[in-house]
Amino acid sequence: MALIVQKYGGTSVANTERMKAVAERVVATAKEGNKVIVVVSAMAGETDKFVALAHQITDSPDEREMDLLLSSGERITSALTAMAIQKLGYSSMSFTGRQVGIMTDSSHTKALIENIEASRLKTALDENKIPVVAGFQGINEFSDVTTLGRGGSDTTAVAIAAALKADICEIYTDVEGVYTADPRIVPDARKMESISYDEMLEMASLGSKVLHGRSVEFAKKYNVHLVVRSSFNNAPGTLVTKEDRCMEKTVITGVAHDKNQVRLTIMSVPDRPGIAATIFNAIAGANINVDMIVQNISSHDQSTDISFTVSKADGKKAFDITRKVSEELGTKGVNMNAEVAKVSIVGVGMQSHFGVAAKMFETLAKKGINIMMISTSEIKISCIVDVKQTEEAVKVLHDVFELAKG
Amino acid sequence: MALIVQKYGGTSVANTERMKAVAERVVATAKEGNKVIVVVSAMAGETDKFVALAHQITDSPDEREMDLLLSSGERITSALTAMAIQKLGYSSMSFTGRQVGIMTDSSHTKALIENIEASRLKTALDENKIPVVAGFQGINEFSDVTTLGRGGSDTTAVAIAAALKADICEIYTDVEGVYTADPRIVPDARKMESISYDEMLEMASLGSKVLHGRSVEFAKKYNVHLVVRSSFNNAPGTLVTKEDRCMEKTVITGVAHDKNQVRLTIMSVPDRPGIAATIFNAIAGANINVDMIVQNISSHDQSTDISFTVSKADGKKAFDITRKVSEELGTKGVNMNAEVAKVSIVGVGMQSHFGVAAKMFETLAKKGINIMMISTSEIKISCIVDVKQTEEAVKVLHDVFELAKG
Repeated sequence: MALIVQKYGGTSVANTERMKAVAERVVATAKEGNKVIVVVSAMAGETDKFVALAHQITDSPDEREMDLLLSSGERITSALTAMAIQKLGYSSMSFTGRQVGIMTDSSHTKALIENIEASRLKTALDENKIPVVAGFQGINEFSDVTTLGRGGSDTTAVAIAAALKADICEIYTDVEGVYTADPRIVPDARKMESISYDEMLEMASLGSKVLHGRSVEFAKKYNVHLVVRSSFNNAPGTLVTKEDRCMEKTVITGVAHDKNQVRLTIMSVPDRPGIAATIFNAIAGANINVDMIVQNISSHDQSTDISFTVSKADGKKAFDITRKVSEELGTKGVNMNAEVAKVSIVGVGMQSHFGVAAKMFETLAKKGINIMMISTSEIKISCIVDVKQTEEAVKVLHDVFELAKG
Repeated sequence: MALIVQKYGGTSVANTERMKAVAERVVATAKEGNKVIVVVSAMAGETDKFVALAHQITDSPDEREMDLLLSSGERITSALTAMAIQKLGYSSMSFTGRQVGIMTDSSHTKALIENIEASRLKTALDENKIPVVAGFQGINEFSDVTTLGRGGSDTTAVAIAAALKADICEIYTDVEGVYTADPRIVPDARKMESISYDEMLEMASLGSKVLHGRSVEFAKKYNVHLVVRSSFNNAPGTLVTKEDRCMEKTVITGVAHDKNQVRLTIMSVPDRPGIAATIFNAIAGANINVDMIVQNISSHDQSTDISFTVSKADGKKAFDITRKVSEELGTKGVNMNAEVAKVSIVGVGMQSHFGVAAKMFETLAKKGINIMMISTSEIKISCIVDVKQTEEAVKVLHDVFELAKG
């Protein structure tokens, strides 16, 4: 008998028919002799609807109120899904974040989990009840509702799996697993049987939408075995774990891309210590995450260009801040390019293989794809390219690194 | 400086534009130097939407789950309304039932309030914050969410007003106050300046939808001054209080009607002790509220007819139970009539005036309106009539008791 946490995303609980299908799957897992804990997201579209309502009222909604508003979506699906399981003759009950004992800090809309008490959850399991947990939420020390930010329900599932030492944490979504590239772009993209936490982390941070990086970090930290699979069929999915059994064979695991990028370049920045800190402190002060940063080598006039990328949503704000700081610093101005995308290759194998970067740059060059920025880590190489060439870049890299073969 | 509780119903917070209008009214009240506590219902239609979702899943949704589901509607409006008040530059924060400290029993979907702790609410007021409370909900001893049943948000408002000894509790709705009859039926129906708790209770129980009886009972018990008024204009509304200043003048205060009635008649019931108890115990066992009960004087064959009414929603279930019990008792069967309505006259004045009942019956008879059942209390007389004659009955009674004059 195993303890299995099953997390169902928004498309998997998009309507009551889908919730009934989820209940069937949960009950089938229980019938095999397993204990199951279900974690649910809000119905697809609900969160966007709440955000739209808030923005009809104010441009800058209070984050404490936003959290109460947003947390409603998961509460609704948890109650309905519990009913669907009960309808199949199994004992089930819903749990809010508070009832699970998910204690967070007070950073509303992006709270961090500090502790999970879970005693009530354990009691329910002991009583052979199937708990259905409202994902994405907890409470802070003041007993106010907090939400966990993007990927929050995945994080709830992984955190519960860690707290209860579950045997496995299944993440049900509308794709069959983690692919070597986006199958909508690369038709022969291959579903991976398994992937390491580190590679999955890079894939997530590089734009693969299957899992949010935060939940993968959590899984890695507590060694939770994650499986990403589809709630629409019975395909086996992809295992995310410590050891990738195929690791030795392949150099590159996958190609990721992210069109949610804006590039800003500050021209002719005086090359003296502390300048970069001044710029990025100002941006961080506005709660904007900077992704890639590239600074060129100083040229003969003692100045340098600094380029960085932020998400599209933060583009305008980052541009305004940067322009203001730039004026104070006496640069030659700032330009912004929203027509860019980040294309990346990921693989723990590249650590021990030479020439991977060269092969990537050469491949893109041959196709006439200009590289505007480059950024590397131990297990990934990212290039900023023209957004119109994204698909072409992904395809050619998937091809040249022979990812379809596995 | 007064402490004012303002409760806004579903039509008053039906969309974000309406919530902004509510915020304007709340802020205007605060600007006059008052402390304000706001209590909100779910957006009009939301609760029905949740009920429909649950019924897509199961015919008999679990009540604990139903409560988690239903309570979401008020949480959503409380967060959005707090944002709307903040947008006007005033400090505001939402409160869930739990955060207000509304402790209830465990009768899910119709919980009774046992205690209100309210310390956090008081702190918020001391800090000059405008609290926006999600109506209709509390938590039980297990920390599970409960809802208060029909009229629940009114009850929340009155209970908070009682707990904090508020100077007044304003119930904002889509009508301007309590009328002598439904203005859609009787064009010269008059809005009352004031009405006593007892009369309001009768009006509520007799089908006037302005206030739910339970909140009026609560207000009477704790002597909370209620004002029913419209959130769509600035008309003064109707005061519900201990003393009706106009009480002496008028015999009849208003005419109420209720089309949500089904009449059941059990024919030739053996006339021996305990029979009525057997029948009504069986019905109560199915959680069906019986409204009027009439038993005719036993006829020469030692048997009697028993008629009673239940709400339309309970009609089918009551019929099935009654038929089963009737067979066991050896009656001549049960018949059900769903084409009935209850028309009532209400007034504390009738206690000291003779002939009110006679005048009512005579008036209806003159118009050819047949009375199927009669039930009286100290301050009301109700008649069951054919549903098609409802409007005519209400009009003629409003006229004969000269209610338009005031």
